[in-house]
Amino acid sequence: MSNSPTVVPASKETGRVEAFSDGVFAIALTLLVLNLQVPHDLPPGGGLGAALLRQWPVYVAYVASFATIGIMWINHHYLFNVIRRVDHWMLVFNTLLLLGITVVPFPTALLAEYFGHPEARTAALVYGGVFVVIAILFNVLWRYASRGRRLLTEETRPETARAIDHAYAVGVVLYLVAFLLAFLSVTATLLTVVGLAIYFALPRRSLEPRSAR
Amino acid sequence: MSNSPTVVPASKETGRVEAFSDGVFAIALTLLVLNLQVPHDLPPGGGLGAALLRQWPVYVAYVASFATIGIMWINHHYLFNVIRRVDHWMLVFNTLLLLGITVVPFPTALLAEYFGHPEARTAALVYGGVFVVIAILFNVLWRYASRGRRLLTEETRPETARAIDHAYAVGVVLYLVAFLLAFLSVTATLLTVVGLAIYFALPRRSLEPRSAR
Amino acid sequence: MSNSPTVVPASKETGRVEAFSDGVFAIALTLLVLNLQVPHDLPPGGGLGAALLRQWPVYVAYVASFATIGIMWINHHYLFNVIRRVDHWMLVFNTLLLLGITVVPFPTALLAEYFGHPEARTAALVYGGVFVVIAILFNVLWRYASRGRRLLTEETRPETARAIDHAYAVGVVLYLVAFLLAFLSVTATLLTVVGLAIYFALPRRSLEPRSAR
Amino acid sequence: MSNSPTVVPASKETGRVEAFSDGVFAIALTLLVLNLQVPHDLPPGGGLGAALLRQWPVYVAYVASFATIGIMWINHHYLFNVIRRVDHWMLVFNTLLLLGITVVPFPTALLAEYFGHPEARTAALVYGGVFVVIAILFNVLWRYASRGRRLLTEETRPETARAIDHAYAVGVVLYLVAFLLAFLSVTATLLTVVGLAIYFALPRRSLEPRSAR
Repeated sequence: MSNSPTVVPASKETGRVEAFSDGVFAIALTLLVLNLQVPHDLPPGGGLGAALLRQWPVYVAYVASFATIGIMWINHHYLFNVIRRVDHWMLVFNTLLLLGITVVPFPTALLAEYFGHPEARTAALVYGGVFVVIAILFNVLWRYASRGRRLLTEETRPETARAIDHAYAVGVVLYLVAFLLAFLSVTATLLTVVGLAIYFALPRRSLEPRSAR
Repeated sequence: MSNSPTVVPASKETGRVEAFSDGVFAIALTLLVLNLQVPHDLPPGGGLGAALLRQWPVYVAYVASFATIGIMWINHHYLFNVIRRVDHWMLVFNTLLLLGITVVPFPTALLAEYFGHPEARTAALVYGGVFVVIAILFNVLWRYASRGRRLLTEETRPETARAIDHAYAVGVVLYLVAFLLAFLSVTATLLTVVGLAIYFALPRRSLEPRSAR
Repeated sequence: MSNSPTVVPASKETGRVEAFSDGVFAIALTLLVLNLQVPHDLPPGGGLGAALLRQWPVYVAYVASFATIGIMWINHHYLFNVIRRVDHWMLVFNTLLLLGITVVPFPTALLAEYFGHPEARTAALVYGGVFVVIAILFNVLWRYASRGRRLLTEETRPETARAIDHAYAVGVVLYLVAFLLAFLSVTATLLTVVGLAIYFALPRRSLEPRSAR
Repeated sequence: MSNSPTVVPASKETGRVEAFSDGVFAIALTLLVLNLQVPHDLPPGGGLGAALLRQWPVYVAYVASFATIGIMWINHHYLFNVIRRVDHWMLVFNTLLLLGITVVPFPTALLAEYFGHPEARTAALVYGGVFVVIAILFNVLWRYASRGRRLLTEETRPETARAIDHAYAVGVVLYLVAFLLAFLSVTATLLTVVGLAIYFALPRRSLEPRSAR
């Protein structure tokens, strides 16, 4: 069928995929605010300030999830800097990654509500587990794009590709640690997720462009 | 009235329509997460894990709807690759299609809530019915654009247009099957929608560009 | 202060304003779906189908608001085709218009909930009133941009500008009629809003470009 | 490590960051409408109109927050006119700023619900406090970008940079005043926030481009 019709162009500029992904990241980030709820029934003798402070796990979970999705957006942004085109499977794997990202508000609400409750461990396992799955989906997307330099730009150097290989694999391990820590302590999982967001927000010297030094 | 004013330009680049459509698809996808609800009242003797697992139809409906909207976005994306300009009716038909897309969170919530309930069939019929309507609206958009090659790019080959004709018509039939299966089994409708998303996610060899082989 | 610093560029490409506006229109459209609620307590002897059908004013209000915002997006899209640059006041007036657009889900929910209730007239007045205000804000935006051809493209012909003047002024009058009809009948207001969306969706021959005929 | 791989490009066009930020601003703006709630239980003898009017603090808080986010979007838009590239820390600081913006619907709901309640002061302090934090985050972003003209365009004149320095510092002071006014009067805080939005919406003569005069 050599003269079959073209529906899926072999090469496609990445602009619309990035714009669509940006939209999904932006909305998932912003929907997290719906987890912040106004305290309705103030306890007798307790003020609004106390009621708001008692909700602190809600705020920590909010910041942890926001920062994590924010860092993941930055990574997605960097990833598409070294990708020159998108093919059908790339669109499918990107959609799967976005599925993971859009789910985040749910385990965030779960952990915020069950923090301090006897069932908190289950909530923390779900919370950590979702991030493990997202980290794996980032690897799938990247491995597909970089296998044999399939979709990479000409300018992408082999060292860059190896550095991303390594950083993404490390990401899975670190989120797996955050997940497993839930068996020891729910707080440990939550603080590890916050810590990982800060860690990933630090510019890594070995990944900086030569020209910047 | 040959010197009447120009309000509706005959030819208009498709960029802003695509960006607007991307926004609507992205938001509809992301709003689906609001259907995932934190279990509030744990049954005595039952843990959070059990409560979360009991909600499994909610997750299946989430994944089915997410995957379906995701695939529809990919199709919308492909469609605009062969469309060179947008006219007034194209904007109107595209807005109708987006109306269908934005409705999806509602039947998804309906099916998730009534799954296993005596009234589940009604929910499954609404769920399948919405996808039939969306599939029809895709056909309307495409038929309008492709009639006499009205809005197609020069590069679009007749075989490509016929392949899209065929693929879109098949889409209506397949979603109609998913809809009708609700009379036999609600699970069948749900699994068929998941299956169709997977099926449409597979790259179809006959639609691949020649240069890729 | 002839050498004062430049913070507000006199001329600015319109791209980012359009993208931001598109985002707001897209989200307002999509949030409307949150008004469609799953019936929770089925009446004894009544099925889900009956419960869904009893909600028909919710669906009509949904379609009316969706279609109206959709048509307004198309108009906003056309408007920016004749605008070549954006200045500070244009940004302010556009933000005011977006304020009107984002409010729409509220009166839509209000009308849907109170339809058939003794207080329905109030809901219909709020519903119609919001559209009158939006129609006025469109006029403000347009009058500011077109006064002395301040922000119009070179290609915009005087007849085109006059046609938009007229169409926008008529829009205010028609939505005012929809608003006032609420004193006679709530259904009349709702149907008029639907009718106006259909009317505005029809391409107007006198506004079509010459080249298209 | 002079031949280390490039993951973070030293120079990056600002387009995708602006698009992502626009998305977050647009969604935060639009989610505010979820605070406008349909009155459910009408008091005996009171109509819907009275129930809607009694909610006036909700509308004022809505308009105040909408206008403030809208003006902040306009400022963000202007800011990126003088920024020629984005580096890693710029992405991090921008994400922090967006964290502040997305939180706004929460204190808005808080103030709207507690307005007139004995605990209203706490709500007003949270409301004002969030805007102080956002104003500080704008300064952090700007100071980082403008330090030694690190990320500014060639065309940005020193006077322009100084004018932005000044305007942003004044912003912090003015929102601090709005915050502190809560100790005197909750209404004062709310009206000051509305007033500041109007004040910032006025074009400042000293900041206008020379060519416009």
